[in-house]
Amino acid sequence: MGRILKKVKLPQATIARLPVYLRSLVMLTNKGEQIISSEGLASIAGTNAAQLRKDLSYLGEFGTRGVGYEVDQLINEISKWLGLLRDRTVVIVGLGRLGGALVGYQGFSEKGFKVVGAFDRDPAKVGTEADGVKIRHINELEDFTKSIVGGIDIGIIATQASSAQGIANRMVNAGIKAIINFAPITIEVPDGVVLRQVDLSVELQILSYYLQKG
Amino acid sequence: MGRILKKVKLPQATIARLPVYLRSLVMLTNKGEQIISSEGLASIAGTNAAQLRKDLSYLGEFGTRGVGYEVDQLINEISKWLGLLRDRTVVIVGLGRLGGALVGYQGFSEKGFKVVGAFDRDPAKVGTEADGVKIRHINELEDFTKSIVGGIDIGIIATQASSAQGIANRMVNAGIKAIINFAPITIEVPDGVVLRQVDLSVELQILSYYLQKG
Repeated sequence: MGRILKKVKLPQATIARLPVYLRSLVMLTNKGEQIISSEGLASIAGTNAAQLRKDLSYLGEFGTRGVGYEVDQLINEISKWLGLLRDRTVVIVGLGRLGGALVGYQGFSEKGFKVVGAFDRDPAKVGTEADGVKIRHINELEDFTKSIVGGIDIGIIATQASSAQGIANRMVNAGIKAIINFAPITIEVPDGVVLRQVDLSVELQILSYYLQKG
Repeated sequence: MGRILKKVKLPQATIARLPVYLRSLVMLTNKGEQIISSEGLASIAGTNAAQLRKDLSYLGEFGTRGVGYEVDQLINEISKWLGLLRDRTVVIVGLGRLGGALVGYQGFSEKGFKVVGAFDRDPAKVGTEADGVKIRHINELEDFTKSIVGGIDIGIIATQASSAQGIANRMVNAGIKAIINFAPITIEVPDGVVLRQVDLSVELQILSYYLQKG
């Protein structure tokens, strides 16, 4: 199975939909559902059945025509593809209100993303704790990252826009290979590092489009 | 121009990319750039030039072959398409840490999304202020919404998972037509209401996929 995983490269849009399918399937299993049709799952996930079937076809042969998918099997397969069968270590830089909310975000720890380090440059914050995580000075980022066995998997930037690129550079230098940027500015990372930009106002702008059609 | 806007229906994926193009263009204009090639803009926006040209072709005829797009013209056109030339009123329900961070999120007000109301059920919070916005009891949601001339455009749910569906129902009953749900649970809204689910852990799961390929 491991070999098959490595061979197929999923389309970017499919990768982005897998977590949504996963969330929908976990909801179903919590309700006690064991089998779900592609129409049913697509509807919960907010897509259409053809798209869902195409996405899942990249992962292998699942589901029985006219019956549906086994919920638990699909949860397991998607988790495997997303590399969620192991925990991931996370650091957050910038402990303002958004950073503070992210440190304690329940959805992270539930899904195996462990916030092990938090960093800020504000002397009033350094040395205190946020949700049981000690806040360290940003200058400790590199040493801390190197001190963690296996390194840090993911760095989250929740600083002001003006600091974001500098923090990204430091994360890259510290060996972090995956970065999420919440600061409202576009930053750049070298090849070999994966970057996701999260701009919360994008969602509002998308809604704004639909509002004017109404 | 208004008539043309109404005639064309954009693909969902294009709509979701327009805010990203807009952010990239604003960054360019802040740097003093007046013209940008499709390759240049695509690269900043994290897509490819063919996709960008296709997306923009839905909006009309822009850009000069071999030269590029006029940055200010494109900002104006995309803003028009997204309905961003007018302000939008927003309410936030759930003033926990995430809700508290959202009330003061600079990116909202900068882009014309005005948080005019904040609601919670915690007596310790009701009556206090968050970033200059008075926190009201959730039972005031309907009356408050009706009291605002033009109504409320967008409702943001930042409650616990268990409260999210109930709050969505109340927003719909109060006449709100666009909802963003940050609670980690899938909710449903009737036809005619637009819903965006935001799950911050989705971004971490996407990164997790790329980490295992490295």
